Amino acid sequence: MKILVIHGPNLNLLGTREADVYGMRTLEEINNSLEELAKDLSVKLDIKQSNHEGEIVDIIQNSKQHHALVINPAAYTHTSVAIRDAIAAVEIPTVEIHLSNIYKREDFRHKSLISAVANGQISGFGPDGYLLALRAATSITNANKGNS
Amino acid sequence: MKILVIHGPNLNLLGTREADVYGMRTLEEINNSLEELAKDLSVKLDIKQSNHEGEIVDIIQNSKQHHALVINPAAYTHTSVAIRDAIAAVEIPTVEIHLSNIYKREDFRHKSLISAVANGQISGFGPDGYLLALRAATSITNANKGNS
Amino acid sequence: MKILVIHGPNLNLLGTREADVYGMRTLEEINNSLEELAKDLSVKLDIKQSNHEGEIVDIIQNSKQHHALVINPAAYTHTSVAIRDAIAAVEIPTVEIHLSNIYKREDFRHKSLISAVANGQISGFGPDGYLLALRAATSITNANKGNS
Amino acid sequence: MKILVIHGPNLNLLGTREADVYGMRTLEEINNSLEELAKDLSVKLDIKQSNHEGEIVDIIQNSKQHHALVINPAAYTHTSVAIRDAIAAVEIPTVEIHLSNIYKREDFRHKSLISAVANGQISGFGPDGYLLALRAATSITNANKGNS
Amino acid sequence: MKILVIHGPNLNLLGTREADVYGMRTLEEINNSLEELAKDLSVKLDIKQSNHEGEIVDIIQNSKQHHALVINPAAYTHTSVAIRDAIAAVEIPTVEIHLSNIYKREDFRHKSLISAVANGQISGFGPDGYLLALRAATSITNANKGNS
Amino acid sequence: MKILVIHGPNLNLLGTREADVYGMRTLEEINNSLEELAKDLSVKLDIKQSNHEGEIVDIIQNSKQHHALVINPAAYTHTSVAIRDAIAAVEIPTVEIHLSNIYKREDFRHKSLISAVANGQISGFGPDGYLLALRAATSITNANKGNS
Amino acid sequence: MKILVIHGPNLNLLGTREADVYGMRTLEEINNSLEELAKDLSVKLDIKQSNHEGEIVDIIQNSKQHHALVINPAAYTHTSVAIRDAIAAVEIPTVEIHLSNIYKREDFRHKSLISAVANGQISGFGPDGYLLALRAATSITNANKGNS
Amino acid sequence: MKILVIHGPNLNLLGTREADVYGMRTLEEINNSLEELAKDLSVKLDIKQSNHEGEIVDIIQNSKQHHALVINPAAYTHTSVAIRDAIAAVEIPTVEIHLSNIYKREDFRHKSLISAVANGQISGFGPDGYLLALRAATSITNANKGNS
Amino acid sequence: MKILVIHGPNLNLLGTREADVYGMRTLEEINNSLEELAKDLSVKLDIKQSNHEGEIVDIIQNSKQHHALVINPAAYTHTSVAIRDAIAAVEIPTVEIHLSNIYKREDFRHKSLISAVANGQISGFGPDGYLLALRAATSITNANKGNS
Amino acid sequence: MKILVIHGPNLNLLGTREADVYGMRTLEEINNSLEELAKDLSVKLDIKQSNHEGEIVDIIQNSKQHHALVINPAAYTHTSVAIRDAIAAVEIPTVEIHLSNIYKREDFRHKSLISAVANGQISGFGPDGYLLALRAATSITNANKGNS
Amino acid sequence: MKILVIHGPNLNLLGTREADVYGMRTLEEINNSLEELAKDLSVKLDIKQSNHEGEIVDIIQNSKQHHALVINPAAYTHTSVAIRDAIAAVEIPTVEIHLSNIYKREDFRHKSLISAVANGQISGFGPDGYLLALRAATSITNANKGNS
Amino acid sequence: MKILVIHGPNLNLLGTREADVYGMRTLEEINNSLEELAKDLSVKLDIKQSNHEGEIVDIIQNSKQHHALVINPAAYTHTSVAIRDAIAAVEIPTVEIHLSNIYKREDFRHKSLISAVANGQISGFGPDGYLLALRAATSITNANKGNS
Repeated sequence: MKILVIHGPNLNLLGTREADVYGMRTLEEINNSLEELAKDLSVKLDIKQSNHEGEIVDIIQNSKQHHALVINPAAYTHTSVAIRDAIAAVEIPTVEIHLSNIYKREDFRHKSLISAVANGQISGFGPDGYLLALRAATSITNANKGNS
Repeated sequence: MKILVIHGPNLNLLGTREADVYGMRTLEEINNSLEELAKDLSVKLDIKQSNHEGEIVDIIQNSKQHHALVINPAAYTHTSVAIRDAIAAVEIPTVEIHLSNIYKREDFRHKSLISAVANGQISGFGPDGYLLALRAATSITNANKGNS
Repeated sequence: MKILVIHGPNLNLLGTREADVYGMRTLEEINNSLEELAKDLSVKLDIKQSNHEGEIVDIIQNSKQHHALVINPAAYTHTSVAIRDAIAAVEIPTVEIHLSNIYKREDFRHKSLISAVANGQISGFGPDGYLLALRAATSITNANKGNS
Repeated sequence: MKILVIHGPNLNLLGTREADVYGMRTLEEINNSLEELAKDLSVKLDIKQSNHEGEIVDIIQNSKQHHALVINPAAYTHTSVAIRDAIAAVEIPTVEIHLSNIYKREDFRHKSLISAVANGQISGFGPDGYLLALRAATSITNANKGNS
Repeated sequence: MKILVIHGPNLNLLGTREADVYGMRTLEEINNSLEELAKDLSVKLDIKQSNHEGEIVDIIQNSKQHHALVINPAAYTHTSVAIRDAIAAVEIPTVEIHLSNIYKREDFRHKSLISAVANGQISGFGPDGYLLALRAATSITNANKGNS
Repeated sequence: MKILVIHGPNLNLLGTREADVYGMRTLEEINNSLEELAKDLSVKLDIKQSNHEGEIVDIIQNSKQHHALVINPAAYTHTSVAIRDAIAAVEIPTVEIHLSNIYKREDFRHKSLISAVANGQISGFGPDGYLLALRAATSITNANKGNS
Repeated sequence: MKILVIHGPNLNLLGTREADVYGMRTLEEINNSLEELAKDLSVKLDIKQSNHEGEIVDIIQNSKQHHALVINPAAYTHTSVAIRDAIAAVEIPTVEIHLSNIYKREDFRHKSLISAVANGQISGFGPDGYLLALRAATSITNANKGNS
Repeated sequence: MKILVIHGPNLNLLGTREADVYGMRTLEEINNSLEELAKDLSVKLDIKQSNHEGEIVDIIQNSKQHHALVINPAAYTHTSVAIRDAIAAVEIPTVEIHLSNIYKREDFRHKSLISAVANGQISGFGPDGYLLALRAATSITNANKGNS
Repeated sequence: MKILVIHGPNLNLLGTREADVYGMRTLEEINNSLEELAKDLSVKLDIKQSNHEGEIVDIIQNSKQHHALVINPAAYTHTSVAIRDAIAAVEIPTVEIHLSNIYKREDFRHKSLISAVANGQISGFGPDGYLLALRAATSITNANKGNS
Repeated sequence: MKILVIHGPNLNLLGTREADVYGMRTLEEINNSLEELAKDLSVKLDIKQSNHEGEIVDIIQNSKQHHALVINPAAYTHTSVAIRDAIAAVEIPTVEIHLSNIYKREDFRHKSLISAVANGQISGFGPDGYLLALRAATSITNANKGNS
Repeated sequence: MKILVIHGPNLNLLGTREADVYGMRTLEEINNSLEELAKDLSVKLDIKQSNHEGEIVDIIQNSKQHHALVINPAAYTHTSVAIRDAIAAVEIPTVEIHLSNIYKREDFRHKSLISAVANGQISGFGPDGYLLALRAATSITNANKGNS
Repeated sequence: MKILVIHGPNLNLLGTREADVYGMRTLEEINNSLEELAKDLSVKLDIKQSNHEGEIVDIIQNSKQHHALVINPAAYTHTSVAIRDAIAAVEIPTVEIHLSNIYKREDFRHKSLISAVANGQISGFGPDGYLLALRAATSITNANKGNS
């Protein structure tokens, strides 16, 4: 089983800036703990980060060989119909994840354009959210396999 | 470590009606799998279900000996300021969980009154969501312990 | 054939207060005329009144042996997603009834959370509305039987 | 006693098109069952259908010899202030009736301009709704007579 | 100088119904006092009443020989883009008049679709408003003549 | 008969600036033509102009000896609850007048706080509007006298 | 193949008024160029114009022998649920066409009640838009034939 | 004179949690100071607290022997039409009181469903607000007595 | 202790006009009863009334020697950011008071710009409200003294 | 004559995914039929596809040698002010085209940021829409040439 | 060259209160630094402060001998149509300046009624903003001179 | 001192197109005058232009060695949460600048997503705005240095 993980814009700065909001772990540390859990779950990961909306659309379109997608769309959560359409088009199980509780932040962050095309959302648990998301993605994929 | 789990209104009907929306597992089956995972995580659970808003407020108020709360407020998610205020008052780590992806349903279900007082949300993963929520609650409690 | 009739909050005060708005007939008198018509239509009635949202949810959940539901949700019409979800869950034919014409009253009474899960609505005919509702419920149930 | 029944725009197509939405009974069949019930209730009916807003206004204005009005304004429910004003002007008891449950349909159908000038509404019971409406109109007229 | 006067829907009932809202003068009496003033001002009048939106559009389109239009669009004030477009198309000076003060009535009557294509509005002075409107129309026409 | 005329803020600039919007006649010229018509109608005028909201409130409060008020609230039309309350308090017949057609201008000018407490409005006829307003005020006062 | 073309209110004035907005071609000239293209496409046309909403509903209802409908609802685009319902009822392929780019005009013209029941829309190309619409209607009809 | 005091949901926690928001006095201390002032004013008090909306409705309905109601609806202020209807039904003088200044808190707390059926509101003065409310209730009752 | 009392626009008319809305007591009578209570509470009062927004701002700015402010901003409640900013700037304890229950009046009166900068509000108790407000202001000032 | 055709984000997936929504023709097939029609119309085409908003802006800026632009902005229709500004800046005739009827889809797809800067729109005709768009673009360009 | 500088309500308190929001410099110090820069730019200044809306309107009307206006409308930014109209009437180049970043403050401060009639805005730079505004005003005036 | 200047999408076209809106100076000319002023202020500039949202995010992230940011986000002002988040993350003083007065343009341009994370805004002064922005950025940086 192969799972694609996409980190959206500005997440490459994690752990180096605004630690009070996003925590002190760097993106590399998060990726390491994801890889560790992936091993436990016997899953292979492809991890990408991009600040470019179009690039993220490209990456999603090229996910044919993956069984599931874990995506933190960050700022694009609230503005990108293009990423939404890409997810809808490729039709692989998708888990949307946010580090912070977006419902405690500015009003414009309460609305996600991605939610309606994802299977489910995980929000507010910091870096641990990625681990929960990976578990969720794995479990959906297993269930799908069972069904087919 | 002791965690309180609250199932909101109509969840006692799980698995017996509207299986197409909420899945085929009964509340009892969900509770069993929760208990199983709790054992693995060395956590004790108190599990309650109620159709009464006031009763849920009472239960939350009496959670002094618990380290965390996992709550599926169901219909009260969208209408209960009283439950919101109760959670804010008792100040224990809280994980909000929804079986279905509330962002794919009616407009009035997109807005949660509970979200801003919970640590995080998990939505759309069916009964598996409860297991993720339990993991999240456990992990927050452990982190809190580490900090103190 | 057995039909459940639920009177929502404050309807127990009917005929004793605010007669100018709700008319002079007491709830007992309304129930008597309902029972009379029920006899004519060869229908059995179960009649309940409650001021408690959760109690009304409980009553609806326990309607397994009934063929139809006639409900005047009163104040909960505009605020209760829980009653809405309960009606959706039990999936019995449901007739929503209001004594007063809710479209001539305050703005917040124009919107019913119940309407979309009921078969139909009857509003504005005072106590007679209950008789129309009982006829409607009976006729839907008969039609359903004819189909099966 | 004489009651005016008005069928609004497109209702002449009933039973011949979109049977899944509006049922399979034709307007003629509905009118026949109305006439039958009218006999039972010792009421005379005048039945009109029009696709023209202005024509419906004319018909309502010429209702001086009628004791009550039963109207299915159909599409004009949501757009005609002129029909609303005509009903308000003639001041005869008015029952608004809709075949389908307008609260399960598009948002713009949830709002009726007619409701606030009608005595009451009946919605969602298909052709049977007309029979309930006739009963309601008869009963209001009888009550009015009793009062005078 | 020739001025077209159009009375919109339900105005034919003036003086005979709802006298508390619209006053006790009939449309005929209003027309008579208009004719009287017209004589004083040396103006010829064409006076029409219609309950039909399309008919009013037709009348406006055939106003080529008129120097000005005085229109009380009544209910169509708030709903008719067609009448608005007709007025815009014929490009003759237009005075919008309302008997009642529309700003003291229901919210939906506060917005006029006609206002932006009329030269000016007169509202709230009862039948006298027509006389003011006729004076206004005459005076605009005279001014226009002076300019050419 | 004595009528109070109030010109609101910036109207003292009439005829000297923005002639394309407000016409070329100065406030003095308008007042002169008002005085002329007043003579014809056997009415005495008190004419005031102020740029100060509070001063306009003071003037209205001191209108005890007047039979009617003609007011062009100008910019305060859209922002002054104080002037609205003053008019409501003194309870003399009030005619609201605007030089330009406020419905062809910016959105925030479409809403008048004054309209609901005035007898009627005249808008869009330039300086001539004042003459119509004076006629309207005189005619209301005469009618009131006739009634008493 | 037979196609019905409906021109809505005020389109009979085309080319004679407001040429700056709607162009200089008359409705007759547009109809002539439609007939020309129809010949090339081997299609027969029925062309109607009406200022009356109800009449347009009647025409649509009587379109049983047509294979497609090309309609410019003009002002009724934004206000007529009746025309919308008529199109939905007759269920023939429908192309909505507007001469001007309605998105460059007043806000209330941005919203079409017809769009959701038409197959597609063409807007902003002036009289040429009718030719594109006829091509579209023909091509949909051909595709439908191919499918059956 | 007998006055009913109702404390809404979560107020039983006063003084024990969130002291920064609601102050450090417990509900018992507040009740004691209320009883003290009651003695001074020669008034008898009935004091209730409940977390249940339906229970509060019941209590209000059973207030026949009371001369006034002092109610802090807390969270139900913003969500309970049932409590509003109960107050409207029993028709006793009602004073609404809030500990915190609800206009400095979240937007959804700015709107009270109770205000329109209460005589007046007191908000933002902490526990002292109850004393002001008791004075207000007493003074209204005395005035009413004087009138009768 | 010295307390500033400000009466906003049109309150000088109290008791002389619109007695049905604002009661029959004059402003002088209200001021007298305020002075009486002030004596009992050992407080000195400075009482001002103004119809001018700017003047009220001036008065507030010159309140350095006062311990608290009791203000009935009347019409300026809903429109004056300047008064709001003045109160925020001088930072003395402030009690907002309204004679009538503003939540039973027009929609635009439901929103106060002052509330968020006042300590608390008292609304709906007529002239008695001023006495409650004076008590509240005194008690806040005493508490503040205790703290310092 | 040279025309630029731009396909927006995700359109490269056409025909391979979500065939039920977007049809079964691939982008290559659409481009081929465009080239065919272009030959008939004696027009040269430049065809681009991009998932990147900025890249599409670049392409539009480099359209100096083209006579017209045919653009399907896809997801960027609803979110890109940058593409809107680019089209406005280059000032070449622009035809906006959508495969699906965007008015039958989610609410957020009903609003196009591009419409107000395009000459016209074509929506809902599937791949055929491109052919109509090419005809429209050609015809506008020819008309422009005729004018110059 | 002569430039008028207007400081709106409450700005006379600068530096003495709320230093955390508005900085520690007094209005006098700001005026001094303005005068200094004016000397460098060879400009003469007229500096006014007022808490009265009407007074500010008066000052603007009397600006005939000035070449430009620098205005900080403070609280009146959000509420004064009268000041907006005065600026529009006098037609001198106008620079709007705010000390604080109004977009980081309460929602009602995000909307300026003045912006649309000013040449440009400067916001958020504290007292330095005035210097930038003076530079901007000077530079616009010089450009205007160059053009004439 | 080193300052980063970012020009957003389509600004590379400045001076070559739409000169009536954006003026006749090219971006190169603007950059030259910026460099000139920079010399006077002893500041070094890094100037970038990009049409790509993601690229602008990259540039902002790489601004570690800069003391301040001057940014004209152009079209991305209204749509880019990603740029907002990047500015918030890097935490350097930021000046937002717009050539045109965005408050005189379309409604959707009145709202800036960037404003709340910038220190201040300058809007409406054309190319001169850049010079003011550079002065503002320099002065903030100097003030910061003084503080540290």
